[in-house]
Amino acid sequence: MQTTVSRNDTMINYHFGLGATTNGAGLGPDILGGKGFGLIEMASIAGIPVPPGIVIPTTECGPYLKRQHLTDEQKELIMDYVGQIGDQVDRKFGDTESPLLLSSRSGAAVSMPGMLKTILNIGTSRATIPGLIKMFNARMAWDSYRRLIDMWGETVLGIDHEHFEHAFAQYKKEHNITDDRAMSAQDMETLCSIYEEVFEQHAGYAFPQDVWEQLFPAIEAVFKSWYGQKAVDYRKIEKLDDLLGTAVVVMAMVFGNLNDKSGTGVLFTRNPSTGVNELYGEFLLNAQGEDVVAGIRTPEPISVLKEQMPEVYDELLRIVKLLEKNRKDIQDIEFTIEDGRLYMLQTRNGKRNGKAAFKIAVDLHTEGLVTKKYAIAKLIKPDHVAQMLFPCFSDEVQKKYNESGLVVARGLAASHGAAVGMVVFDKETAVALSATQPVILVRKETSPEDINGMNKAKGVLTSIGGLSSHAAVVMRGWGKPCVVGAEACVIDYKAKTITVGGTVINEGDWLSLNGTTGEVILGQCETSAPEWTAEFTEVLSWADEIRRLRVRANCEAPADARRARQYGAEGIGLFRTEHMFYGEEHAHELYLMKKMILSTTSAEKAEALVALKPAFKKSFMTTLLEMDDLPVTVRLLDPPLHEFAVFSAPANQEDEAEQLRLKKKLCEELQISMEELQRRIDALHEVNPGSGFRGSRLGVINPQITVTQVQALCETIIALRAEGKKPHIEIEVPFVMNYEEYKNQYDVIVATAAEYSLTPGEDFLVGSMLENMGACFDADRLAPITGFQTFGTNDLSSSVLNISRDDASRFLPAYVEGKILKDDPFQTLNPLVARAMKIAIDGCRGVKGNTIEIGICGEQGGDPESIEMCERLGLDYVSCSPFRVPIARLAAAQATLKIQQES
Amino acid sequence: MQTTVSRNDTMINYHFGLGATTNGAGLGPDILGGKGFGLIEMASIAGIPVPPGIVIPTTECGPYLKRQHLTDEQKELIMDYVGQIGDQVDRKFGDTESPLLLSSRSGAAVSMPGMLKTILNIGTSRATIPGLIKMFNARMAWDSYRRLIDMWGETVLGIDHEHFEHAFAQYKKEHNITDDRAMSAQDMETLCSIYEEVFEQHAGYAFPQDVWEQLFPAIEAVFKSWYGQKAVDYRKIEKLDDLLGTAVVVMAMVFGNLNDKSGTGVLFTRNPSTGVNELYGEFLLNAQGEDVVAGIRTPEPISVLKEQMPEVYDELLRIVKLLEKNRKDIQDIEFTIEDGRLYMLQTRNGKRNGKAAFKIAVDLHTEGLVTKKYAIAKLIKPDHVAQMLFPCFSDEVQKKYNESGLVVARGLAASHGAAVGMVVFDKETAVALSATQPVILVRKETSPEDINGMNKAKGVLTSIGGLSSHAAVVMRGWGKPCVVGAEACVIDYKAKTITVGGTVINEGDWLSLNGTTGEVILGQCETSAPEWTAEFTEVLSWADEIRRLRVRANCEAPADARRARQYGAEGIGLFRTEHMFYGEEHAHELYLMKKMILSTTSAEKAEALVALKPAFKKSFMTTLLEMDDLPVTVRLLDPPLHEFAVFSAPANQEDEAEQLRLKKKLCEELQISMEELQRRIDALHEVNPGSGFRGSRLGVINPQITVTQVQALCETIIALRAEGKKPHIEIEVPFVMNYEEYKNQYDVIVATAAEYSLTPGEDFLVGSMLENMGACFDADRLAPITGFQTFGTNDLSSSVLNISRDDASRFLPAYVEGKILKDDPFQTLNPLVARAMKIAIDGCRGVKGNTIEIGICGEQGGDPESIEMCERLGLDYVSCSPFRVPIARLAAAQATLKIQQES
Repeated sequence: MQTTVSRNDTMINYHFGLGATTNGAGLGPDILGGKGFGLIEMASIAGIPVPPGIVIPTTECGPYLKRQHLTDEQKELIMDYVGQIGDQVDRKFGDTESPLLLSSRSGAAVSMPGMLKTILNIGTSRATIPGLIKMFNARMAWDSYRRLIDMWGETVLGIDHEHFEHAFAQYKKEHNITDDRAMSAQDMETLCSIYEEVFEQHAGYAFPQDVWEQLFPAIEAVFKSWYGQKAVDYRKIEKLDDLLGTAVVVMAMVFGNLNDKSGTGVLFTRNPSTGVNELYGEFLLNAQGEDVVAGIRTPEPISVLKEQMPEVYDELLRIVKLLEKNRKDIQDIEFTIEDGRLYMLQTRNGKRNGKAAFKIAVDLHTEGLVTKKYAIAKLIKPDHVAQMLFPCFSDEVQKKYNESGLVVARGLAASHGAAVGMVVFDKETAVALSATQPVILVRKETSPEDINGMNKAKGVLTSIGGLSSHAAVVMRGWGKPCVVGAEACVIDYKAKTITVGGTVINEGDWLSLNGTTGEVILGQCETSAPEWTAEFTEVLSWADEIRRLRVRANCEAPADARRARQYGAEGIGLFRTEHMFYGEEHAHELYLMKKMILSTTSAEKAEALVALKPAFKKSFMTTLLEMDDLPVTVRLLDPPLHEFAVFSAPANQEDEAEQLRLKKKLCEELQISMEELQRRIDALHEVNPGSGFRGSRLGVINPQITVTQVQALCETIIALRAEGKKPHIEIEVPFVMNYEEYKNQYDVIVATAAEYSLTPGEDFLVGSMLENMGACFDADRLAPITGFQTFGTNDLSSSVLNISRDDASRFLPAYVEGKILKDDPFQTLNPLVARAMKIAIDGCRGVKGNTIEIGICGEQGGDPESIEMCERLGLDYVSCSPFRVPIARLAAAQATLKIQQES
Repeated sequence: MQTTVSRNDTMINYHFGLGATTNGAGLGPDILGGKGFGLIEMASIAGIPVPPGIVIPTTECGPYLKRQHLTDEQKELIMDYVGQIGDQVDRKFGDTESPLLLSSRSGAAVSMPGMLKTILNIGTSRATIPGLIKMFNARMAWDSYRRLIDMWGETVLGIDHEHFEHAFAQYKKEHNITDDRAMSAQDMETLCSIYEEVFEQHAGYAFPQDVWEQLFPAIEAVFKSWYGQKAVDYRKIEKLDDLLGTAVVVMAMVFGNLNDKSGTGVLFTRNPSTGVNELYGEFLLNAQGEDVVAGIRTPEPISVLKEQMPEVYDELLRIVKLLEKNRKDIQDIEFTIEDGRLYMLQTRNGKRNGKAAFKIAVDLHTEGLVTKKYAIAKLIKPDHVAQMLFPCFSDEVQKKYNESGLVVARGLAASHGAAVGMVVFDKETAVALSATQPVILVRKETSPEDINGMNKAKGVLTSIGGLSSHAAVVMRGWGKPCVVGAEACVIDYKAKTITVGGTVINEGDWLSLNGTTGEVILGQCETSAPEWTAEFTEVLSWADEIRRLRVRANCEAPADARRARQYGAEGIGLFRTEHMFYGEEHAHELYLMKKMILSTTSAEKAEALVALKPAFKKSFMTTLLEMDDLPVTVRLLDPPLHEFAVFSAPANQEDEAEQLRLKKKLCEELQISMEELQRRIDALHEVNPGSGFRGSRLGVINPQITVTQVQALCETIIALRAEGKKPHIEIEVPFVMNYEEYKNQYDVIVATAAEYSLTPGEDFLVGSMLENMGACFDADRLAPITGFQTFGTNDLSSSVLNISRDDASRFLPAYVEGKILKDDPFQTLNPLVARAMKIAIDGCRGVKGNTIEIGICGEQGGDPESIEMCERLGLDYVSCSPFRVPIARLAAAQATLKIQQES
């Protein structure tokens, strides 16, 4: 909930639990903080008991931090409210007879667990302790004082908690006490004197006995914790850069440690791991909340409460249902029982994993609490979908390896999921070892020659390259984990080692990769397998009902096409013809391609291309069969020819011998010397291949390249129709720079198809890949002779921002961190790239209106934020790797709902 | 003159010389063809004798070529007009007594010398010969018939001229005749019979005796010659792609070969080599025009006419002045004298060289014939300026080497002018040999390490790279000839040879380079030195009065700055800071730069940068002194760091030893191993350096790089002011992608300057180089914190069109030839790039109006067509290499005038 508040409203006048009145119920967590928001909300629902308190809103945080002190006016207001709080519970702050104790709690708009400060038991002093002893008991009173000195000292003054802890340990040692609970009231009283000494020693003054001198600094300390190092780092990592600050909640203490009819607990209103509708949480008898968190005593499952205090448990159940009904979501709750009386201390939407998220969404809908639209918009995050698709490291595993310092490097998170295997450095070893062991293929960077090794590996790690490097694109296409550009890893192919920091990793060592975070972890971590539940399928079907954008997949292989269709793809948005040359089973095709490229006469070239045609046709046929009656965008050959022509460094002697054989064969067939062969290969080298001799340029200079592919496509159409199939082929001209370039290729395509009596518009469509700024400007001229348009936003981002994806790792992380770029533009559409798209869309729609389909097939097509931009731009579909199709289906629906809500 | 003609007007009704009436005087050469236009124009000026005739306009060419025959209506009209032509000269076409002879002549809007056909003597037949004999004489009559059979046979039917020539030679041999003039009338008559036989043998029918059967095919043949191979090739080379076709002029023959009071001649109304106001031409007594062209007889200078026929000469002089007055330009004239009577056959604006162009412009203005504006707009071409600045190969030299087949390769014309020298392959030999001989440095491509060799060479030839490759940019900056990307040249550094086709060129062989055409010529061609005349200076001063755009120069070295200022530069538009690292005298700076780049700690980097500061400062100071009180845009370091870090392949053992010494020193100072050094260098390698880690990105990641440069600039300002100078420094942030990136560097610059109490806006300006599409989109956001803006249109063209300049030679020539691109976008602004500029200009002016200066400093800034686009875009200045400054001054004035005329 986003709230607009004028400066006059930001005074300290939000409160809860003060009788039947609350103030602030119309405001959101941005102003009240998550904790304050929950408390005011609970207090305003009839029948939910909340200890009274006030909320100093987040809008006061900035002004306070500038001023560095509370104003007199603020202090007066606080004193007034504290009086009202006391009235509500028949106690009085600082009173010797019936003293009120307060807590000062933090709470930003978004939960920042453990990052901000809280101080409990404010108002305990040597003057109020007698009253506390009377009201409660001596041990509790002294224990409260002890805790206050410790927390206040640490939080307000930064006195190291260890000093107090050390004194405590010392005392127990001297008195042979092992269990805290064995400390008597007398022990506690003695300890309080010791704590007071420790405090004075470090603070330079005695612990304040004036309760207001305790309270105001405690409030200020919460504000100040906003700029604590931990909190700043956390916000940077989580990209929480638009928060106003923390709110401060000052509320009456209730005591779970009062007696055996007291206790404290935390719970989820449903199981956050499975989604099952059952209370899920922990409970500790006769304890304060911090004991649960500190792990001093082991809490009991919530079911124990049911046995021990059935009425309280029933009350809790009733409240939980009220809260879920109000919040329309699973709640994460804190509560305290003081002498048999239940108090709610916090409620917030509960974090859950993917499986639970889908179950909860379906259940809440079945229970009539939420509509499908609400569930899609609010209850499911794209990450939940990802968890259903990829193996991952559980939170515990991640916590474990983070704490144990096993993360040796961080690269770019290039492809989702968790992978564990033995390190190998070349494709041959990868293939051989993978027969018996899982392997991780480690390369400086990968090339099409590595395909077989990559295919056999559980994951790939590279030290060079960005999110659109070869390794990243290929592994993402396969839905397999990949970490790229881990520059700290020095890879030595000869020695077969990775050196990173002081660590040397050898071939055969176990390595784990977290493709979702980019972490490279030493050793063998446990992975959790993905699980496709009925609720997952159901929620995705809701998304399909809602979304306007269609979703296609980027894939070539029949198996990938089949999976994409299972995942809900409504066609192929990008079939990269060149993929038929990758992999050892296509060695002959690659040989023919090399021959075509390295020959100098058109006759030689034509001959090699004719020989390649059956391979093209087979590649098209098998995948189109899987996508029958769905559109398939086939992009003509795109990469710089050098990529095909070059022989990569041989991995071993056998490999070297095979390369030599092929080179000799080439020389023989082309009737040239080895020197001339090398010269021709070298001549294809480019300074900037990314904007070199590639894409449509190949077909313009050598039309036969286009002709052969189109012939194969036409023959595919005819053959499939003969089998009663319905092929919908969209022939895409890649890397178009302007109208004239496209027109050249369009004419070649139309003329070639005419030989088969096939016509664009009737038998297939012809369109261009919009990935150069020039083509975007020319979109209005292109429109009359295009049957569809697709944005290739990888290259378009390169074109607009002039960033080479392959080299960007040198500065991109720093740019994102320094907010020069909001996101990696190759993951999430950059707004400037969207401007380019807008120009092209306006140009195209200006001529053809909505009679033409415009889509996106760059990497960003599977990114939720980018999908929202595509929805706003009015695209017709997004296309992404098969594994991201379900995410895109959800994100498309969410985008539709978001925009509906705005209008 | 551009004319609009409706279809009804295109019938055959334009005529001249038919009494006092002409028709067509309002039309231009686009409709009438150059020849027809000149004839109708001359005929409409009182007192200029022109043989009567008609013009079939260019608009009829296309329809005829579609139809492939003249319509009956056209034939009737022609017959009617031919009757009128006959009436005018008291002859009749086909008459046996007093026969009219006609010529059918071609003429397109633009002169295409020798490409289109002409047929003379139409109407000569065995029936009309007796009449001709009576009117003239027997020899002439038979000679006319002989010529007609030959020309008609060749032109209409394509019979090889050699067949007739062979028969002629045979006859002369049999009759022991050596000189054509020794052929008697009887000889001619006999020869005519032989020609008739040759004709029938190849045509399959007898030579037509019906004069209309001669005329109509002769007209059609002229039309058909429009698609002759030679003509098509010529138009392609000259980029004449918007012509309608050829017109056909049918006019009465006059006979310069009638008697000794007859003759024919061609002349320029002024000397086209010097511009001197004197008739300049050739004259042949008793001859037909084709004799002059064919070179059968050696013509006499025009002065001979003055002696032999003083009245005719005076008449000619009178006409010449009339024509010049009418055309306001030097004329290129053809005339014939028949029996003492002068006829003008053609007039057109004369081609002239640079020196003459300026002299003529000044003289015509002095004579009151033209205004300064007219002279600038119409009488001077940018090429004329270029001829005044660079040595060149004269037309004769070019003709000679073209005809003798000495052109062994063609590369890209990267830098104007002619260079001749001995071939060397490395900088050391270049430096050594250049002490005694001129040298041409030949490299696959050049790098900054080659600078000294390039500096000593007369010209540079490379086999790789485009118009913005290192070699091209550097040599253009120096105004020295350069041919790049001559891919046919296989360069072998070890063998020290260029192999091109079958030819091997060795070190020490003579080679000539034509940097204006891209030709690589074997041997030692003669060059013509440039000459800076008073008229040149005067005309440029006229341009300065007219132009709105200011002109700056791109340069760094003080000597270049001085020259630029002499050439009229009004400041420096691009000072490339990195140039201070090029050249052997800067070896130490380059070493420090390497050290800075290859160190890993900011302390090490800072130390190296501090050591570099004095060098920066010296570089700024010396050039700013030359440009005192003029603006100097200093671009901060731009190139990818790898360029500086890498050690190029050593040229020899000495070089290798020096490199090893430097590497060891680096290792020692950085305390790393040689392996680690190499690893760090390799790690900087980029896949696409052009859009990699460069420009502002360097300063964002390592602010100290920016800080040091700005410190040096601030110290320069302070030091120069102390000397009483007025430095106007504009600090330019290169390769900006978006607002945030620029803002980052802007803040660094402002903070650094503040340490010197210097402020942007007051003491210097800060601006960005707009060379990424993203920055163009963001121009409105950039505007508030920019003091100027410059378009870097080299990189902007790369960004918009996604073309790597360095690799474009693989397809760019074919693209220009195939009209996919109208021009090389790195020479002439591409319209799509202008769209990007428009977006940025609108964004910037929208915020700052005209209070901000926007310029261009890409290569296109010196290109006339691009300068016109800059004028239309409303830029404030163009900046180009010093040698192009005069061209830019002229082109800017021409652009102003052109746009004034349009409005």
